[in-house]
Amino acid sequence: MNETEVIVVRIYLHEAKAHLAELLQYLHDESKVRGVTVFRGITGFGSSGEIHSSTLMDMSLDLPVVVEFFDVPAKIKPIIEHLNTKIKPGHVVYWPAHIND
Amino acid sequence: MNETEVIVVRIYLHEAKAHLAELLQYLHDESKVRGVTVFRGITGFGSSGEIHSSTLMDMSLDLPVVVEFFDVPAKIKPIIEHLNTKIKPGHVVYWPAHIND
Amino acid sequence: MNETEVIVVRIYLHEAKAHLAELLQYLHDESKVRGVTVFRGITGFGSSGEIHSSTLMDMSLDLPVVVEFFDVPAKIKPIIEHLNTKIKPGHVVYWPAHIND
Repeated sequence: MNETEVIVVRIYLHEAKAHLAELLQYLHDESKVRGVTVFRGITGFGSSGEIHSSTLMDMSLDLPVVVEFFDVPAKIKPIIEHLNTKIKPGHVVYWPAHIND
Repeated sequence: MNETEVIVVRIYLHEAKAHLAELLQYLHDESKVRGVTVFRGITGFGSSGEIHSSTLMDMSLDLPVVVEFFDVPAKIKPIIEHLNTKIKPGHVVYWPAHIND
Repeated sequence: MNETEVIVVRIYLHEAKAHLAELLQYLHDESKVRGVTVFRGITGFGSSGEIHSSTLMDMSLDLPVVVEFFDVPAKIKPIIEHLNTKIKPGHVVYWPAHIND
């Protein structure tokens, strides 16, 4: 087995944010990462100050969206630097991992 | 770039379990983590003993649900201690990561 | 708290691939991992060469699918070796984590 070190990145957004289309365009056209997967959450809540219902289940108009991708550190590091200028603090999470390659 | 160390936590449940609403209430009202996202899986199976169909595709009445959140270790550690009293062993997974902050 | 070291594995596929059913069968019947969750992405793109629309949003016929599972390293390592013979390079991602156990 040939192991390659990568960094996994997950970006936490909401559907209502205009960020998503722009972000996907950037990842596809400019950063050219190996691949991107976008997941929609069924519910969620954000950082301080947001009040939701007691059930936390009626956020259907603005569901959470996670954009996930991974690539080698040399490719990911400048992407994270770029994302830091676009995505608000605390919404880009990343950790080291391995891929079969 | 300012990196902050966090711990990512993923909790594996099923929709049919009453745990979910109670868990979200706890994370929202008491633990006050930065944010929580809940994902629904399209299929899955649990630990030993459960028999599913050969296709594994007809579990629509009790789909897997993953509750994901992250925060700094000082905040996450007591949450994991609490979860250990509520969630059965092997269903809370966590690992170190970084956020832009 | 009793911590057990595990390896989290995520495999990136597409719904249209025949791999999925075969993979779930293998994980369920042969490898007997603790549990498997399958997630469907709402959009995504793969590695080099694939052209998608400018919006990246009209891939409804072949949505990305992620198969996720975790277990102790001794159990995961032979599974990854097996997956390397079945899944194309760069589509199996894994990292160390802990579970409550």
